[in-house]
Amino acid sequence: MRFAPHMDTALEEAQAAAARGEVPVGAVLVAPSGQVVARAGNRTRELSDPSAHAEMLVIRAACAAAASERLPGHVLYVTLEPCAMCAAAIAAARIARVVYGAADPKSGGVAHGARVFSHPQAHHVPEVIDGIGAAASEALLKGFFAARRDLSSD
Amino acid sequence: MRFAPHMDTALEEAQAAAARGEVPVGAVLVAPSGQVVARAGNRTRELSDPSAHAEMLVIRAACAAAASERLPGHVLYVTLEPCAMCAAAIAAARIARVVYGAADPKSGGVAHGARVFSHPQAHHVPEVIDGIGAAASEALLKGFFAARRDLSSD
Repeated sequence: MRFAPHMDTALEEAQAAAARGEVPVGAVLVAPSGQVVARAGNRTRELSDPSAHAEMLVIRAACAAAASERLPGHVLYVTLEPCAMCAAAIAAARIARVVYGAADPKSGGVAHGARVFSHPQAHHVPEVIDGIGAAASEALLKGFFAARRDLSSD
Repeated sequence: MRFAPHMDTALEEAQAAAARGEVPVGAVLVAPSGQVVARAGNRTRELSDPSAHAEMLVIRAACAAAASERLPGHVLYVTLEPCAMCAAAIAAARIARVVYGAADPKSGGVAHGARVFSHPQAHHVPEVIDGIGAAASEALLKGFFAARRDLSSD
């Protein structure tokens, strides 16, 4: 499966996020050359920044490195369906393709809720491929939230 | 008009953004005490960061200063209707009220397009007050884009 290696990297970032006490979501951004230009996991708690989702961190890092607001031809791998904030940032950065793992009926903004790419207003709509590595991503998220529930009931 | 002073500050930030060659949008974040805790204009070009909208910059600055991902009771003033990215960040930060100036049928995500606060999925919906300082905001934006068109036709 040609998506698997980059999604494996994104899952590693999600695991590292969980180890830091962050919601386990990881992302990888790949240039048209095939080179990984950024990888990150959630850091909202560490940075006290509600915008520090994995997707936002890789987009910001890759744009800074490229000295450009846009990343044409790039592919974003992320373990969870992006929220509306991240989906709109993906469109703003003109990312060509988004490959994501688990669906997020509660907070997703691609296939759920605001469905950011599904409005006539969307200036740029990436190709979207879902369900890649979904089981591993879901297992990580479920384990993380189950552990937090156990802690809070102690 | 009780909103005017903070919106005037946001308009100053929008003017400063225009002077830097950025799309003229400005924002101010006000704490429950009434203190201005952050003010910013767009810096997407300067920072090569498609997420560096005025709203995102004030939310990130205020969250960092408060060492918190959430800003309960805070009021955000912004000269233009927030886009879907900023609207979702506003919800994530639990901002109590959003006061905005001009409507943005092309890229707005509050009253147009993705309408981020209008889905059952929205975890937090701020009070929204629109049209404050709208004429001044629109005049700034129209002047900015007219000047860019003139430049590009030279």
